[in-house]
Amino acid sequence: MADDQNMHLVIIRHGESEWNKLNLFTGWTDVDLTDTGRAEAAAGGKALKEQGFDFDVCYTSLLKRAIHTLNIVLDEMDRAWLPVHKTWRLNERHYGALQGLNKAKAAEEHGEEQVLIWRRSFDVQPPALTPGDERDPHVQAMFRDVPQEDLPYTECLKDTIARAWPYFEQEIKPQLESGKRVLIAAHGNSLRALVMQLEHLTPEEILKVNIPTGVPCSYTFDKDWNILDKHYIGDPATIEAKINAVANQGKAKK
Amino acid sequence: MADDQNMHLVIIRHGESEWNKLNLFTGWTDVDLTDTGRAEAAAGGKALKEQGFDFDVCYTSLLKRAIHTLNIVLDEMDRAWLPVHKTWRLNERHYGALQGLNKAKAAEEHGEEQVLIWRRSFDVQPPALTPGDERDPHVQAMFRDVPQEDLPYTECLKDTIARAWPYFEQEIKPQLESGKRVLIAAHGNSLRALVMQLEHLTPEEILKVNIPTGVPCSYTFDKDWNILDKHYIGDPATIEAKINAVANQGKAKK
Repeated sequence: MADDQNMHLVIIRHGESEWNKLNLFTGWTDVDLTDTGRAEAAAGGKALKEQGFDFDVCYTSLLKRAIHTLNIVLDEMDRAWLPVHKTWRLNERHYGALQGLNKAKAAEEHGEEQVLIWRRSFDVQPPALTPGDERDPHVQAMFRDVPQEDLPYTECLKDTIARAWPYFEQEIKPQLESGKRVLIAAHGNSLRALVMQLEHLTPEEILKVNIPTGVPCSYTFDKDWNILDKHYIGDPATIEAKINAVANQGKAKK
Repeated sequence: MADDQNMHLVIIRHGESEWNKLNLFTGWTDVDLTDTGRAEAAAGGKALKEQGFDFDVCYTSLLKRAIHTLNIVLDEMDRAWLPVHKTWRLNERHYGALQGLNKAKAAEEHGEEQVLIWRRSFDVQPPALTPGDERDPHVQAMFRDVPQEDLPYTECLKDTIARAWPYFEQEIKPQLESGKRVLIAAHGNSLRALVMQLEHLTPEEILKVNIPTGVPCSYTFDKDWNILDKHYIGDPATIEAKINAVANQGKAKK
């Protein structure tokens, strides 16, 4: 429990996945971390431990790259015993029919501008999956306990916010308000959904936010949810380089 | 969910830990699996997958050797996304002041008979920890959310049953009765506590039960909790050898 009257939240984006490495649109495809991704998670966990962080409850998505990131962080902190809640509502943005496509190749075929719209627009959905497609969450075991009508065929960031934020409000907020220190391991866009709401950003502003991989970000809020402190935990130059790397992913290879 | 009217439970004891290997009394000491232990867990997970097992909800202790066993099994089954509940009530039997002592050395010092009583008696507690000892759960972070009066300084098997079985009855039984398929990854004695109750064994009978490490054991119950089927999942000769290895641990080295 927090030893002050403030609320303490740390978010961490999963490290490099097999498909990040191949530069493919991943979305809800359940690919694992690479060795680099595991090392990023371990570095994040070590940094948290060194700086004296501790948690009471953890949240993650149903996707193994986020779950494994969390497990590695907890192992580094000797906190494998903390309660962990897994929810599809913290899954990455669903990328519809783009899932599996190479980002650079998509930029060549559809134009860099169109890919940037799909990747970075607030309310333009990528092309939807055909129902029954093997990528369709309605036919995947992972989502068998989720109400079928809640599952998407594609999502824009606005859609991701619409399913991630209510979970934060209903499940996570009460924990923070009761003094529990919360750790969330999730994805670029599901974390953006939270960041947009927590920082009161406009659609234009959130589109410019690039969350670095494997770097814990610590928020301290007062009782009225005003941000008293926000900082990344790690080496500033490394973090800056990571933010730029994410921003450059959508560009066509020359 | 089960596709019949029966109830489906699988239990698995964690594989070799660092202290199993050193032949030390472990109890609540939070030691990790060895590479052998990880391989045992992976083999258990593979066998479950090959035989078409699936689960809806999982339970484990707060100790990393059980949590890691479960994580490895779930990864092998591509089920990392299943909900997992961790509870101190499924922890190994607390071994009191014996924790950290070499089993063979203890047999030399105290006599093989005394060690066998401590290891295998139903209601004789080993010597208790001194309050405030670094091994005392009352001062360990892992148990900070557990009511202090529930935490032991030592336990006999009867004590372990007294705190493990109510958890099964209150939390796990309703899941099974609602058709959920349950996987429990835990410890030699916390699993014995469940086995004794589920199989209606006497104290004398449960003392003779040696649960092999890393081998999933499948139970099928009818609606009235009669056992319709119980079988270990894996190669019979390997399982037999494992059961004998556990039974021989308490003997002094000649």
